[in-house]
Amino acid sequence: CPCPLPSADTALSRLVRRLLSARRSLDLCLFSFSCPQLARTVQLLHRRGVRVRLVTDAQYMGLHGSQIGRLRHAGIQVRHDQHSGYMHHKFAIVDGRMLITGSLNWTTQAIQSNRENVLVVEDAEYVKAFQDEFERIWEEYNPANYNFF
Amino acid sequence: CPCPLPSADTALSRLVRRLLSARRSLDLCLFSFSCPQLARTVQLLHRRGVRVRLVTDAQYMGLHGSQIGRLRHAGIQVRHDQHSGYMHHKFAIVDGRMLITGSLNWTTQAIQSNRENVLVVEDAEYVKAFQDEFERIWEEYNPANYNFF
Repeated sequence: CPCPLPSADTALSRLVRRLLSARRSLDLCLFSFSCPQLARTVQLLHRRGVRVRLVTDAQYMGLHGSQIGRLRHAGIQVRHDQHSGYMHHKFAIVDGRMLITGSLNWTTQAIQSNRENVLVVEDAEYVKAFQDEFERIWEEYNPANYNFF
Repeated sequence: CPCPLPSADTALSRLVRRLLSARRSLDLCLFSFSCPQLARTVQLLHRRGVRVRLVTDAQYMGLHGSQIGRLRHAGIQVRHDQHSGYMHHKFAIVDGRMLITGSLNWTTQAIQSNRENVLVVEDAEYVKAFQDEFERIWEEYNPANYNFF
């Protein structure tokens, strides 16, 4: 892809650098994901052999501009809810040690136009609470558990 | 009001109890606010003499079910943005010492139906970053600075 990752010291570039520090795993729990630069970052990690797992919201993953189809196509494991309520989390866990969470949906609109916050937390107690929630959701959204009727 | 605050040990009741611990100030920075129990909690604190300041999003404050009008009517100071982008934060700061933040909008839908997270943080470094952001927004959204043309 000819588009470079962001290089200026913006909030987006700082987020990208945190993600690119992943060596083993990246767990993503994202309500909506339409930002191309962040999708490229996740694809790059996948190609490097980092185990990427992504949980997202069923109603938002099909919206115009969503990057979920592209990530699935690239071979990344994606699971989604089956509920009318939203899977409204917006967090990432890098190598099971760094939690990145806040108000920011991974959309171009949010990054360019909104007032948002992103916390980076390495305190094990907080990371564990979110990792546990991720594992619960990952199992709950396992396609083997879908109800079709 | 005859409606009791929630008494069972739910996530909502735990959030209400944290808010009710306020003695001096409550700073709220909320994208959307439609949950009646949380509005009653904020009104109660205002009546107790806690200084409540509320920043919200202009596009969402007029939506059906919004509690913003009611809180303004009760005498609580409210300021809102003037932009097309969203004021998308969802955080509260209690007495300048406890930060409550996460994915949760203060809506009945979010509380009843969504997967959400709320972090409670008392680490001074994190609290200060959010308090600084609150003060910046409070000044920026001062009606004296509005542009009408």
